[in-house]
Amino acid sequence: MAKAARAEGLAQEIVAVGRRREHLQPALEDGAVDRITTDVAEGLAGSDFCVLATPVATLGSLLAEVWRAAPDDAVLTDVGSTKAAIVSTAEALHRSRPLAFIGSHPMAGSEQSGYRVARANLFRGALVVLTPTDASDPRALTRVTLFWESLGARVTTLDPVTHDRAVAAISHLPHLVADALVDAVVRMDPNFLSVAATGFRDTTRIAAGNAQVWREIFQENRQALGEALKTFREALDDLDHLIATGDAAAVERELDRIKRVRERLS
Amino acid sequence: MAKAARAEGLAQEIVAVGRRREHLQPALEDGAVDRITTDVAEGLAGSDFCVLATPVATLGSLLAEVWRAAPDDAVLTDVGSTKAAIVSTAEALHRSRPLAFIGSHPMAGSEQSGYRVARANLFRGALVVLTPTDASDPRALTRVTLFWESLGARVTTLDPVTHDRAVAAISHLPHLVADALVDAVVRMDPNFLSVAATGFRDTTRIAAGNAQVWREIFQENRQALGEALKTFREALDDLDHLIATGDAAAVERELDRIKRVRERLS
Repeated sequence: MAKAARAEGLAQEIVAVGRRREHLQPALEDGAVDRITTDVAEGLAGSDFCVLATPVATLGSLLAEVWRAAPDDAVLTDVGSTKAAIVSTAEALHRSRPLAFIGSHPMAGSEQSGYRVARANLFRGALVVLTPTDASDPRALTRVTLFWESLGARVTTLDPVTHDRAVAAISHLPHLVADALVDAVVRMDPNFLSVAATGFRDTTRIAAGNAQVWREIFQENRQALGEALKTFREALDDLDHLIATGDAAAVERELDRIKRVRERLS
Repeated sequence: MAKAARAEGLAQEIVAVGRRREHLQPALEDGAVDRITTDVAEGLAGSDFCVLATPVATLGSLLAEVWRAAPDDAVLTDVGSTKAAIVSTAEALHRSRPLAFIGSHPMAGSEQSGYRVARANLFRGALVVLTPTDASDPRALTRVTLFWESLGARVTTLDPVTHDRAVAAISHLPHLVADALVDAVVRMDPNFLSVAATGFRDTTRIAAGNAQVWREIFQENRQALGEALKTFREALDDLDHLIATGDAAAVERELDRIKRVRERLS
């Protein structure tokens, strides 16, 4: 994000705050950021826009720390994959100190991490979901929207709970299912992997994601993931039963209906 | 296949046999084949190598017709996605008339069909599984192996039942699961598809396959698919239960084990 914001000339000064200087050093050397620090208060002094970018499990406690350190007129956002928890944390913090927070979820990135794989054009054409609530400051919403649009992203809004249900359906469930597909082959016979072609590789690519990141997402979004998993099991059972009936025309109608839904995506 | 065989100069004469001349005409005009016919007996007269390439549901009855029309020294093969049924049909036909048949399954192609999308390099680097049995003629096996290798493919062998279990695990199950993933999103809220990113598109790409082709594959390989589906449901349930325990270290160990299996593929 720093690399992209720098490329677009969006900030006079960009400060990177992290737990380890050695992880921030490459961004400083590359000119993507102007200052690096491991101290949240020092990093936030004088800032007017702050983006939290950590795994979802640590976002809540980090937000509390940032809330104490941020200037009165700062606008805060995050890039977490789940939104209900962080938005409710922000609303609780807001009661003791009014400050502007808007949840963001940029649908971009890969299974890789670190400055070495950073790309200034990562957000170009990507979708960013913002999750404002009735309590959100409209000016902060505009500010965060313009930030993402300046990086080339398309911005849409969802309420936090609907967002979590949507990403459970289109991201977390497919990831869990890809994991189970790989494991099922191992359980049947690991040698079967030697005949896997493009189809299997595409379907299970996301199973190569970082284990800690995905464990946190699965646990953080447990409720919505549970609903998605239940719906998926019903859909799979229905297809299985339909095939078992031997009704060729009915099976083809169903596969064709699904094919047409899928084709609208590509 | 004709286009690839022609490009490699593998045959003096290539004859295309099909139900409709208009589907064969483009291959004739392009020079990939020398003759086209809708008559099986006419097409097979004088031939020494015959490849059956139809959907799996019609392969069995076509093989019986080809068996009657083929010259005594012809070698027959097919390109069907399931192998136990066609190999057992060939063994039954062999009892009334000895003729050489070796099952082939080239792991190549796409969801598209027709000569218009044919590529002479389709099989270059692809894996082709042959399914000979103890009763197979070793010279026919060598002949079919050399045919595929001449088109640039890597050839491996599996017995027909193991082949069907392997493709159920790495191809048919992922396809059925991709269909159920798409349908689950539709059932939850079709609008969720508007936030689908690369991950969902990759995971469900195969759900855009031809409905008739896949209905036939699902029904033809029903038994092995049933075993794969049962194993997949167990793997998914185990992951689901593990996440529910809240044991972060155990979940991460499991996701990491699966990630490492998946990484060996790419």
